[in-house]
Amino acid sequence: MKKIINDPQNVVSEMLDGLVAANPSLMRVAKNNCVVKIPRARDPSKVALVSLGGSGHEPAHAGYVGYRGLDGVACGAVFASPSVDQIVETAKAVATSKGVLFIVMNYTGDILNTEMAQELLRASGVQSERVIVTDDVAVENSTYTTGRRGIIGTVFVNHIAGVLSTRRISITELKTKAEGAIARIRSGGVCLSPCTIPAVGKPGFEIGEDEMEWFMGIHGEPGIERGKTAPSREIARRILDRIDRDSPFEAGMHYAALVNGSGGTPVMELYILLKDVVDYLSEKGVVLVRATVGNFMTSLEMRGCSISMFKLDDPIYEEVLATPSCIFPLSSSAEHILP
Amino acid sequence: MKKIINDPQNVVSEMLDGLVAANPSLMRVAKNNCVVKIPRARDPSKVALVSLGGSGHEPAHAGYVGYRGLDGVACGAVFASPSVDQIVETAKAVATSKGVLFIVMNYTGDILNTEMAQELLRASGVQSERVIVTDDVAVENSTYTTGRRGIIGTVFVNHIAGVLSTRRISITELKTKAEGAIARIRSGGVCLSPCTIPAVGKPGFEIGEDEMEWFMGIHGEPGIERGKTAPSREIARRILDRIDRDSPFEAGMHYAALVNGSGGTPVMELYILLKDVVDYLSEKGVVLVRATVGNFMTSLEMRGCSISMFKLDDPIYEEVLATPSCIFPLSSSAEHILP
Repeated sequence: MKKIINDPQNVVSEMLDGLVAANPSLMRVAKNNCVVKIPRARDPSKVALVSLGGSGHEPAHAGYVGYRGLDGVACGAVFASPSVDQIVETAKAVATSKGVLFIVMNYTGDILNTEMAQELLRASGVQSERVIVTDDVAVENSTYTTGRRGIIGTVFVNHIAGVLSTRRISITELKTKAEGAIARIRSGGVCLSPCTIPAVGKPGFEIGEDEMEWFMGIHGEPGIERGKTAPSREIARRILDRIDRDSPFEAGMHYAALVNGSGGTPVMELYILLKDVVDYLSEKGVVLVRATVGNFMTSLEMRGCSISMFKLDDPIYEEVLATPSCIFPLSSSAEHILP
Repeated sequence: MKKIINDPQNVVSEMLDGLVAANPSLMRVAKNNCVVKIPRARDPSKVALVSLGGSGHEPAHAGYVGYRGLDGVACGAVFASPSVDQIVETAKAVATSKGVLFIVMNYTGDILNTEMAQELLRASGVQSERVIVTDDVAVENSTYTTGRRGIIGTVFVNHIAGVLSTRRISITELKTKAEGAIARIRSGGVCLSPCTIPAVGKPGFEIGEDEMEWFMGIHGEPGIERGKTAPSREIARRILDRIDRDSPFEAGMHYAALVNGSGGTPVMELYILLKDVVDYLSEKGVVLVRATVGNFMTSLEMRGCSISMFKLDDPIYEEVLATPSCIFPLSSSAEHILP
């Protein structure tokens, strides 16, 4: 196992120390692996946004705490749900009189622990709601999931809810808008090489030198097919075809695309994949108003990629996407084009 | 060779198509592998900033064309210098009456081709100057270099020159300020696994399963020692010790740090390394005013990392670092901490 780490048992805590050092608006909660905004960066008159999940997907989710982003994140061990206590502690640290909205990816552990945390919060007088992200078009049920998995499209949801929360809307309206975004987002990904959980010390699965896995999950959950490695344009086509079957692309409609690397994928390859995404969408006649490329939600050192598509048939989402946040700091609007 | 590409001979052109699709303020120059700002994003009353170099280091350098960043970049084949024609074409596309400042990393091909390009530009009436980045503390001479190599510290130089150029200072003053930044920046890196140039199809070198290379170059140029894999805190210590011997850390002095991934390194590991960088610098008593983590200058899918340190003994550099650009879009200043 070749990794730039110290103690395999302590990677999450050390990683969060580094994350907080890089972000002056963040702090850790007590000794726990939870990250929240520092007090002076909080807005007591808005809904607090809290996310949670296993670690190993950096910068997701803790890296999205900040300006117009999340208010707090409870970080589990690598690929494992955070505890009920962590979720409660994080929510209490940032809760406001407007309440707490949880953004949860659809994994059974995260769902159950959030439910229990919400009960405890209610008993403490903290109002909370939650939205569940289910953007993966791969499979209906999976290793850790009943229903569709939540994957990279969650990054869009974090941004949308983050920006809208700063407009001080009610928790009911914020939940509705976040669920509206979730209903419009679809994702799919492929895997070229496995990753190794530090505390385990060996890869979670094996994959041949000339093989790839189609529609694998972000924790290495099985996809729908193991096949020979394919060129970029075929990867773009198969992922987008599956999204299209689920939610047909409409000519003339506005969309945003997110091309994500799984951690070990060179940036060059992500740009090549985006080119093929653009070519595919051009054939469909859709209008791509925003395309973002990067390592937004990773799976340790896995080589692979995903494509997330966000249908912008409600103008609110396009306007909010053009508003910079710590998640998408570069606007596609004129303010960043004109000096 | 497992890569998300189509034609190994065409990776640079396809990558630039994707890059331009992701950045509405960019365009390609003719059929050449050059990227420049679109006309309405240019400021004719400032010095034009042009960089150049081999591809394979994405997002460097073409990804740094944009708001308060570079004005144009000539992109060579993977790990190869761009041609004189490319450099001339890029500079002519964005040149202003204030002139063109080239930011060049110290590699013999890039240096010679820029010199020839400057002669041709002079004959066409375009004034130009250049600065040469030599931040790598590894070796005095190297495979493709006379004198020190230019590596990741170049990202700092791009930001400093980019932001200052928008203040419409003269080319003489801009060059002086950029050279002042270069004199204050030191970098060093390590490599854990090799990378494969797509058109070659096999790794440029081999490295054992339990080995790493200390102070390797960004094209796989030899470092100073092959050794057993080391923990993160030893990587931080050896790199920073070498920087310290070259330019001693001063207690109470302000510094900025950039922890960079080589392309195949998980974000989690970069944060862990930053934690160890922070611990080292705390012992030295220096004040770290900004720490940035990410894949800023990669080497295809190489696993490895580098640390760049910028000594902020002149307040102009700290102020400019706190000003957001397309290169460092998140300011560490209050505007991004307070909603």
